[in-house]
Amino acid sequence: MFTERIYNFSAGPSILPVPVLEKAQSEMLNYNGTGTSVMEMSHRSAAFVEIFDETKASLKKLMSVPDSHEILFLQGGATLQFAMVPLNLIAKTGKADYAVTGNFSNSAMKEAKKFGDIHIAASSEDQNHTYIPAQDKLDLSKDAAYFHYCDNNTMYGTEWNYIPDTGAVPLVSDMSSNIISKPIDVSKYGLIYAGAQKNMAPAGLTVVILDKGLLGSEEANLPLMLRYQTHIDADSMYNTPPTYNIYLLGLVLKWIEAQGGLVGMAKYNEEKAGILYNYLDESKLFSGCCKQLEARSKMNVTFVTGDKDLDAQFAKEAGAKGLANLKGHRNVGGMRASIYNAMPLEGMHALVAFMKDFESKHA
Amino acid sequence: MFTERIYNFSAGPSILPVPVLEKAQSEMLNYNGTGTSVMEMSHRSAAFVEIFDETKASLKKLMSVPDSHEILFLQGGATLQFAMVPLNLIAKTGKADYAVTGNFSNSAMKEAKKFGDIHIAASSEDQNHTYIPAQDKLDLSKDAAYFHYCDNNTMYGTEWNYIPDTGAVPLVSDMSSNIISKPIDVSKYGLIYAGAQKNMAPAGLTVVILDKGLLGSEEANLPLMLRYQTHIDADSMYNTPPTYNIYLLGLVLKWIEAQGGLVGMAKYNEEKAGILYNYLDESKLFSGCCKQLEARSKMNVTFVTGDKDLDAQFAKEAGAKGLANLKGHRNVGGMRASIYNAMPLEGMHALVAFMKDFESKHA
Repeated sequence: MFTERIYNFSAGPSILPVPVLEKAQSEMLNYNGTGTSVMEMSHRSAAFVEIFDETKASLKKLMSVPDSHEILFLQGGATLQFAMVPLNLIAKTGKADYAVTGNFSNSAMKEAKKFGDIHIAASSEDQNHTYIPAQDKLDLSKDAAYFHYCDNNTMYGTEWNYIPDTGAVPLVSDMSSNIISKPIDVSKYGLIYAGAQKNMAPAGLTVVILDKGLLGSEEANLPLMLRYQTHIDADSMYNTPPTYNIYLLGLVLKWIEAQGGLVGMAKYNEEKAGILYNYLDESKLFSGCCKQLEARSKMNVTFVTGDKDLDAQFAKEAGAKGLANLKGHRNVGGMRASIYNAMPLEGMHALVAFMKDFESKHA
Repeated sequence: MFTERIYNFSAGPSILPVPVLEKAQSEMLNYNGTGTSVMEMSHRSAAFVEIFDETKASLKKLMSVPDSHEILFLQGGATLQFAMVPLNLIAKTGKADYAVTGNFSNSAMKEAKKFGDIHIAASSEDQNHTYIPAQDKLDLSKDAAYFHYCDNNTMYGTEWNYIPDTGAVPLVSDMSSNIISKPIDVSKYGLIYAGAQKNMAPAGLTVVILDKGLLGSEEANLPLMLRYQTHIDADSMYNTPPTYNIYLLGLVLKWIEAQGGLVGMAKYNEEKAGILYNYLDESKLFSGCCKQLEARSKMNVTFVTGDKDLDAQFAKEAGAKGLANLKGHRNVGGMRASIYNAMPLEGMHALVAFMKDFESKHA
């Protein structure tokens, strides 16, 4: 039983900024003098439309989304995007390139195979996904309808340190676990998607940012909800969107603005990750899993002691001290500290202090 | 600006019970001594799995869901079900029957046409959807894979007053706007679906209850997220479900149990609707839109003055008094009072008192 807030290192759903939770709490029964909760508002009410429009405008501004691109607030998570991306984009040439650098990009690739000719343009499977393939190792197809990659690999703790150059082939990226953690050049992407539950909002919202010019070749009898054009035409209100999640995303974006926007956020995230990586580099007990320094994720730091029992003991003892959810993914083992935007610097210091203490007892 | 809670007659998203909102508010930053918000919990954490299991068990008990049927917590709203139902069920015979008794059943029928041979087994369009077709007017196909109808027509204020007898053909029903408003015999249905945002939880959760025996004829290359079997096999956790919505559904179900379960809820809903219908029957200014007494909805009461300007004035003046969102759907006009489970009896008395006062000024 914790009477205070813990440091929650969960990979997702994950930590939200305390000021966001406090604001939502204060407005729970009466939002801004409307006499209702945001949860209870019609998505077509003036009060909610204002929340929606402000949230969308705020995301557009923060990420510098160009006018060529549309922001959509959808449902179904990244997993539904694994199907929607090929169903909407692949028909142009019938082929697509996929880079496989972890679990989710592999799942995306397998789902896409149902809908077209899929070419694996790069894979890090040979070294258990502990690195990111270099630009000159990408085996690109000139006639691909798009190139798909996952920008941050939650499970393995790797993050692409460059934007792939694919020439005229549109870039599609799953940014579920590092969106709005740093500035990116959205204009270089054909489509970006992200489940909200890591860096943006509670689970149940999926953000898609896409170049409207890519559409038009999709099959006529696609389910309406699976056509991006349906959602573009209706401004994400073809049916009821996940209203409360959108409201919370709006609060999160305001909080990010107050941290200095994405430039400020990136600086903070680098500082936070640096504290843990610097310790891992010098520790005699713990070692980081990603050996390619420039591809180490700023969002998910994976590490091991080299002894499975000791790993389990570490995660358990840390949890009891309020350093929660440090156990690695069940497919990978070891430890994983997910340190998204909302993880405070103090959480990093507390974690490293605990690791040092643990090391002193088990070295 | 309202400093107190208003009476919110919104058709959806819509009113939630105050004790539910208060409980969620009190647990916003620290759920049950975990030191985190439910929003921040991994869907695979022990604390969330307990919430999930309790919510599912509570719904199973409240609705007396038989073991032959599975309860799924999905995303995408009823609109995604318009496609998922035929994509999963129609292949058995290639044909399905649809009853069209309002806007949503019409949309469901049109979407289904993409995936099979659709027969309109009944329609109330001839009288602008102000009634429900009788059993002996249903033009049933013996070789339909299923019969689809919408049990409560939000926009028109009608509600099926009987369960269609379709022999061996499985019943599929959209119960988005009247689920858990009264007891129903789930065993008579092949599949029931409902967007949660009217009677269950905030928008972003879709509840599906289906007879597992109906599956098996769907195409092999359906998107994974569109296969019911994917979600059955993973107990609705193939990917991250809308965790906070599920938590709120759990709170709503506990509140219903405290009202005497669905029997108690139905009695309360009949009393509430009766207050308004009794007044409409005697009013010289207002008249109810549904003329078939036994098919009047207990959830959405539609009425008019017969004068469009006066209708608009009524909705506006009522809103200023904290009787909000009484304007009818833009496609229909007039007024609509949505009086879901969470609308208190006092709201009905306040509405009728205001209507009487308005009538005395405009008779």
